[in-house]
Amino acid sequence: MEQLASDITQTKYALDTFYFLVMGAFVMWMAAGFSMLEAGLVRSKNTAEILTKNIILYSIACVMYMLMGYNIMYPGDGVSSFWPGIAFGLGGDNAVADVVGGGEDAPYYSTLSDFFFQVVFVATAMSIVSGAVAERMKLWAFFAFAVVLTGFIYPMQGYWKWGGGFLDQAGFLDFAGSGVVHMTGATAALAGVILLGARKGKYGKDGSVNAIPGANLPLATLGTFILWLGWFGFNGGSELKVSDVGEANAVAMIFVNTNMAAAGGAIMALIVARFWFGKADLTMALNGALAGLVSITAEPLTPSPELATLIGAIGGALVVISIITMDKTFKIDDPVGAISVHGVVGIWGLLAVCLSNPDATLSAQLFGIGVIFAWVFITSFIVWAIVKAVMGIRVSEEEEYEGLDVGECGLEAYPEFTPGK
Amino acid sequence: MEQLASDITQTKYALDTFYFLVMGAFVMWMAAGFSMLEAGLVRSKNTAEILTKNIILYSIACVMYMLMGYNIMYPGDGVSSFWPGIAFGLGGDNAVADVVGGGEDAPYYSTLSDFFFQVVFVATAMSIVSGAVAERMKLWAFFAFAVVLTGFIYPMQGYWKWGGGFLDQAGFLDFAGSGVVHMTGATAALAGVILLGARKGKYGKDGSVNAIPGANLPLATLGTFILWLGWFGFNGGSELKVSDVGEANAVAMIFVNTNMAAAGGAIMALIVARFWFGKADLTMALNGALAGLVSITAEPLTPSPELATLIGAIGGALVVISIITMDKTFKIDDPVGAISVHGVVGIWGLLAVCLSNPDATLSAQLFGIGVIFAWVFITSFIVWAIVKAVMGIRVSEEEEYEGLDVGECGLEAYPEFTPGK
Amino acid sequence: MEQLASDITQTKYALDTFYFLVMGAFVMWMAAGFSMLEAGLVRSKNTAEILTKNIILYSIACVMYMLMGYNIMYPGDGVSSFWPGIAFGLGGDNAVADVVGGGEDAPYYSTLSDFFFQVVFVATAMSIVSGAVAERMKLWAFFAFAVVLTGFIYPMQGYWKWGGGFLDQAGFLDFAGSGVVHMTGATAALAGVILLGARKGKYGKDGSVNAIPGANLPLATLGTFILWLGWFGFNGGSELKVSDVGEANAVAMIFVNTNMAAAGGAIMALIVARFWFGKADLTMALNGALAGLVSITAEPLTPSPELATLIGAIGGALVVISIITMDKTFKIDDPVGAISVHGVVGIWGLLAVCLSNPDATLSAQLFGIGVIFAWVFITSFIVWAIVKAVMGIRVSEEEEYEGLDVGECGLEAYPEFTPGK
Repeated sequence: MEQLASDITQTKYALDTFYFLVMGAFVMWMAAGFSMLEAGLVRSKNTAEILTKNIILYSIACVMYMLMGYNIMYPGDGVSSFWPGIAFGLGGDNAVADVVGGGEDAPYYSTLSDFFFQVVFVATAMSIVSGAVAERMKLWAFFAFAVVLTGFIYPMQGYWKWGGGFLDQAGFLDFAGSGVVHMTGATAALAGVILLGARKGKYGKDGSVNAIPGANLPLATLGTFILWLGWFGFNGGSELKVSDVGEANAVAMIFVNTNMAAAGGAIMALIVARFWFGKADLTMALNGALAGLVSITAEPLTPSPELATLIGAIGGALVVISIITMDKTFKIDDPVGAISVHGVVGIWGLLAVCLSNPDATLSAQLFGIGVIFAWVFITSFIVWAIVKAVMGIRVSEEEEYEGLDVGECGLEAYPEFTPGK
Repeated sequence: MEQLASDITQTKYALDTFYFLVMGAFVMWMAAGFSMLEAGLVRSKNTAEILTKNIILYSIACVMYMLMGYNIMYPGDGVSSFWPGIAFGLGGDNAVADVVGGGEDAPYYSTLSDFFFQVVFVATAMSIVSGAVAERMKLWAFFAFAVVLTGFIYPMQGYWKWGGGFLDQAGFLDFAGSGVVHMTGATAALAGVILLGARKGKYGKDGSVNAIPGANLPLATLGTFILWLGWFGFNGGSELKVSDVGEANAVAMIFVNTNMAAAGGAIMALIVARFWFGKADLTMALNGALAGLVSITAEPLTPSPELATLIGAIGGALVVISIITMDKTFKIDDPVGAISVHGVVGIWGLLAVCLSNPDATLSAQLFGIGVIFAWVFITSFIVWAIVKAVMGIRVSEEEEYEGLDVGECGLEAYPEFTPGK
Repeated sequence: MEQLASDITQTKYALDTFYFLVMGAFVMWMAAGFSMLEAGLVRSKNTAEILTKNIILYSIACVMYMLMGYNIMYPGDGVSSFWPGIAFGLGGDNAVADVVGGGEDAPYYSTLSDFFFQVVFVATAMSIVSGAVAERMKLWAFFAFAVVLTGFIYPMQGYWKWGGGFLDQAGFLDFAGSGVVHMTGATAALAGVILLGARKGKYGKDGSVNAIPGANLPLATLGTFILWLGWFGFNGGSELKVSDVGEANAVAMIFVNTNMAAAGGAIMALIVARFWFGKADLTMALNGALAGLVSITAEPLTPSPELATLIGAIGGALVVISIITMDKTFKIDDPVGAISVHGVVGIWGLLAVCLSNPDATLSAQLFGIGVIFAWVFITSFIVWAIVKAVMGIRVSEEEEYEGLDVGECGLEAYPEFTPGK
């Protein structure tokens, strides 16, 4: 009998670990999604550079989070709810005896599977930054910032919420990271964009606003589909457990709601764009799908599928309005719309928790939004400013004109397709 | 002991639900596959439009199937085997007590995971339509049709077979949807293409047939690989259960047979093309792989892997013959070959069930083919005709010449790569 | 009680089978990764041909391995440790009674799921070859070689190690195939490249070395991300079991180490390229990530994540040195760097086993490297030579100049994007 009980417990542990790893692999795949999305939305002369940025930022995120980020974010018990301290390296995994004999508090999945799931989230946050600063930032300046964001800035606020710090204790709710991940990435991007300035030719001296179309929309669409798929892991894995009826139902609900919110966002953004511009703007549909996904990320479990569709649809409308306003009114140059998709809509997602989760309060949500924004903006601004002072963050005008591919990477993304250049 | 039994039952439920969700995510990924396949096979000037169509048709399918399609297709007990009635919205999920104490008839996976798996199938059927009507249909006319197909036409025939209606009772067999999904999509496409007519310049007044090459074959190849991968979910998930030895073996057999049929189809189509045209035509190899997949979809479980390879290979030969015949003999303009791949080969798949499944009869298979074809063709034709009368289904000659990207979407898919245009 | 024990055993069997199938699907996805990587790194005029090669080589691998390869590699008991004999076709799957009542030696996953997992590995090995011989080899000559490699050459050495033959008995360790898969593919490629010669224009008569840039770096980057994702299946599935605490922890460790090695490889290759060439060369970063993955494949379980990062980083440095040396010093023309990534770094991976696995000996690793290299090189050389004598392996100078797409496939990959051609 004891053997049978141990067998079942171990099987559940294995199922939850496997689920965690598969969901984590889906999230890792989002790195490809951001790469394709951003590569499709910039001009061909800056494409190789943004690809380089994406594959290396993912790598930096993995290394930094392994070296210190994970320990900051999940420091264990007995630390201050504000300052978790810094420790290095990864520990070992759970012993069989602890799993089988640990009772209610026994670990139910592999610690390393948790690290894997968490590390791909950091990379997601950093990926958000790369699109917003595209086409004019120095490559190595970006990497320098990536080291600090993924090793310190992100893990600190991650600790405050998911690690059990003061935001968690204050009742702030963020199921899968509309704030901890998406708004964080967007806020860091905003700080960078402010210091960096707009691309040459984006805003005329006469106040004109010039559209700079992306070079490869099939890539951008592929990136969006990849992100949509990856988001099943992002939200679905954030339930952390699947191995009984209640948990399995919860994961299924999250899958359905994630999918419905994206669908609602895509449709609504297309309709808004159709009425506003007179055209069915593909890039708005893509951003609408992503906005739907960001909208539902703070609470994908408690809404009904119909409400999830609506939450996503509102996100889809919001993202069109935000992208146009950022561009035309505030003249904030964000080539891929990342600050709108992940920042503005991330805030909407955090507020929308109150629509379906009875544990949520508007005040706690606003408190969390304020804290994360302030922390990430201030620290990011300081780091960007230091990097700017030390090595500069903007490429030369000549390099910007010629394209970052040749200047930074020494090659072209499409050497045969742009003969007129 | 009772606790142990409950634990095991719950673990099985969780495993089956997780399996369902992962398989469903694979099928969702097929939406990206169709997008890339179609975007690669049309001309660059119509690429953004077909991408818009694909992401929005998927979204529409999700919303319509949630609102009414799922209830039509799976209406519960006590309804007519012809008319399931219409109901709205999704219900709740299974209670623990029902799962653990339900005996033989207890639910063994989450209802919402079933919805997720089913909804991505509807989207697949609709994706098939978009390729066939490419490069000349009005975007919003297409969306209007998508609403009806995914909300009503598809679920009705789905009910007749998978929901337990009269086709199921008549002994018609269609394991994963060669008929219910693929032939349905192709038939709806055929009705649209007949009303729509061929692209300008496709068929000369002198009877000449002009090839219109696709603009981006790497995308088309990527799309095919995505579909191949997604098909493991499509067929593998259709077993509906994995949690004991017999079911696990069945799912493994389905994976192997699905893979082998695709391989057989790709090789055979390439060989046929090589002998027919003298060249190893990539697009035929891609269509051959897809034809192999469609061929095995009606019965991926009972054939041996060798027979599955053969069934796929016949599908691969058939698709080359069908594509050429449709084009040259019948002058049906199907830019991506969707009617041949999913329709003609879908019928082959349904007939091939008789080769390995002793429960299949040729008469029941023919009956099912006839009913689905008649239902989908007639209803689709009526809907397309209404849409045509109300808003028109074909873009202007000028827009067709300039490209649907600019006309419908107000942007270009590859603004920097087509300077000669 | 007996029923409960049977239920648990069956659930474990189902979980392990499902895990195997999902991991196998990830590896199948690597076929798309190699296709995109290679399609991105060749010139546009040879792109459709390399896509055709990739989809058909995967198909050939599946058919040949089903027909004979699997039986050669896993012949069952009582055969010579050198010559397993040849048998045809796949057998049936495990009976419930054997699984439940088999005790310690009972099968714990579906035999067909094992076939599925193994068959996608053969395809990987063959994919490695296609990149190295790109842009000048006859398509059907390549397919003829593929038949022999996947049906005989690969399975023989696979038997010697994974099938329990003399390499396994000699203590040679290769967890997931740095040698059995990657070095095998690279060695077969080397033999082909030697017989084939360099591309026209690659090496001048004056000793000059000309860079021939790839036409589509976003595709190459996508391919790299696909391979990275697929590698979680490649290494993670090679644990073969997940269904208890120890195994689940092991699979999690493998996921983490696989990811870290890739990250280490990408960063290090970029840094080496930056110091060597003065530029952040994207293609080197991509090759660095792949080199990191190959490095850890021989032993992804026993290193700590920090050591795995280091092993990958050394692989990343090595691949840059190797690619430059192969090109400039040895004048071996390998358009995608496959021989360096999979061969040179594969050897590094096999040696690196000694860094963390106490069961490894340098002599056994060197013995394994020598045997696999000798076997694959000699047999491949003979087969390539026979194919050369019978049908020729190199296209005409004119076809090479015009591009293999038109010559072999009768179409162009990007008919609208290369007007200047």
